[in-house]
Amino acid sequence: MKIITISREFGSGGRKLGKLLAEHLGVAYYDREIITAIAKNQELEEEFVANMIDRDLWKTMPLKFHNSFDKVNTAEITQQDLLKEEQRVLEEIAAKGKDCIIVGRNADYRLKDYKPFRIFVCADLDTRIDNCLLYEETGGADTIKKIAKNIQKIDKTRARNTAIVTGVEWGERSHYDLIVNTTTWDIEAMAPVIAQVAMKWFETHEL
Amino acid sequence: MKIITISREFGSGGRKLGKLLAEHLGVAYYDREIITAIAKNQELEEEFVANMIDRDLWKTMPLKFHNSFDKVNTAEITQQDLLKEEQRVLEEIAAKGKDCIIVGRNADYRLKDYKPFRIFVCADLDTRIDNCLLYEETGGADTIKKIAKNIQKIDKTRARNTAIVTGVEWGERSHYDLIVNTTTWDIEAMAPVIAQVAMKWFETHEL
Repeated sequence: MKIITISREFGSGGRKLGKLLAEHLGVAYYDREIITAIAKNQELEEEFVANMIDRDLWKTMPLKFHNSFDKVNTAEITQQDLLKEEQRVLEEIAAKGKDCIIVGRNADYRLKDYKPFRIFVCADLDTRIDNCLLYEETGGADTIKKIAKNIQKIDKTRARNTAIVTGVEWGERSHYDLIVNTTTWDIEAMAPVIAQVAMKWFETHEL
Repeated sequence: MKIITISREFGSGGRKLGKLLAEHLGVAYYDREIITAIAKNQELEEEFVANMIDRDLWKTMPLKFHNSFDKVNTAEITQQDLLKEEQRVLEEIAAKGKDCIIVGRNADYRLKDYKPFRIFVCADLDTRIDNCLLYEETGGADTIKKIAKNIQKIDKTRARNTAIVTGVEWGERSHYDLIVNTTTWDIEAMAPVIAQVAMKWFETHEL
């Protein structure tokens, strides 16, 4: 089974690359689908799960929450619970035994026993700001300065959460098989050759 | 013109990748050739140039030196002189207008006006120690511990010299178009697909 994981700086085009790789290779693509599955399994609202699971982990505390029927639930749920569920969902995906692309969620580390091909995608800040404007992922920010701040905040949270969950440094080159800097890349044109790199890599690991 | 530059951690297989890319693409390969050219132009011994130019730059001082006829020369030459000559040799290579691969020498930065495809090659320490043993590049070290120390010392010097010469951080992902972690790579098998990545990249930059 071939699993390609994509970790990425916010706005670097990692998701786009992941989608194109999945299309090109004709394999499943997991990204937001993981949050959806966690929400469904835990009977929670998707937005709640998304916000809670990607919140600053070092500020974690038990929180009251709304379930998917919008009733206040008296039970308490922690980020730790959701992270455990996230791990379970990832393992469920891997257990299917089908080739796939997984974006984010520290899948590179969590599914390391499945020997995924681990890609990290980065880009300079200007490129990332442009991408945020293009894909309307500005997080409500209405100036370049605010968008930049938002990007940096999200990456800081990702880095800290990765450190807490995996014990490894987010974006540090030794934890990936390939790092792609999309600043100078036409992602659409490059995706097919990156797919070939991944396939060749898997080929050499089957030998 | 297509220039591929390869920066690399010592022992990571960057030179091997460079040679294979050159063979596969049928283009010129420059590595030690640059030192040879500097030595020839300056009428110096090659080993002297190699040692002096890659020495810790922050300890730079004028030194008496031997010329290629092994006579003590009373003139003084500085690393700065050799670095200038290095820059000149690199520009001469680029001025030929022919596709090529250049390993090391901060060519990525120094020839940036030629828009090279900039690869950085890294690997974990065990892999690099194995490579040093395999290619007999142990620098005279006779234990694993000493080889590891030697690797780290060379990389530290490379990092500092790159910072001094270029003002940018050696190995920092934003300065390269692609970072390859050869820890899990069969370089021989992967070289042809990396060649394709480079060629596709150049194709999109000609548009």
